[in-house]
Amino acid sequence: MEKVKVEVNLKTNVMDPQGLAVSKALKNMGLENIKDVRIGKVFYLTFDGEKPDKKTIEEFCSKLLANPVIENFEIIE
Amino acid sequence: MEKVKVEVNLKTNVMDPQGLAVSKALKNMGLENIKDVRIGKVFYLTFDGEKPDKKTIEEFCSKLLANPVIENFEIIE
Repeated sequence: MEKVKVEVNLKTNVMDPQGLAVSKALKNMGLENIKDVRIGKVFYLTFDGEKPDKKTIEEFCSKLLANPVIENFEIIE
Repeated sequence: MEKVKVEVNLKTNVMDPQGLAVSKALKNMGLENIKDVRIGKVFYLTFDGEKPDKKTIEEFCSKLLANPVIENFEIIE
């Protein structure tokens, strides 16, 4: 049983309205020096037996886990 | 300008229907030995000047970023 962690984040030039909403909420709640919030997703994949090779995982990331037009992904472990 | 990364994940005993859907989709796409997928969120907070102390950040995490009933959070850096 092997595990892979994949982090998916919006590209830096893509607007993050959800992050903006969180940033404003934090400011309203008293966190005055908050400047910016960006929100991403993290996937924990568990495999029966051995995990696939990195290339295969990358393929599935760009097909399903991330939208390569607006998101970057990073395979962490 | 300092940054803090916060990861929010569902507690292990909480069902993750979104993760289940991704798991099934990966299997249908040919990733046969996928066993389980869990999906979390990651927040990148940027502060003007110094970041608040850890206790303050924890307070805002449990008030806004995470739902402590079903989610755990981890302040990473």
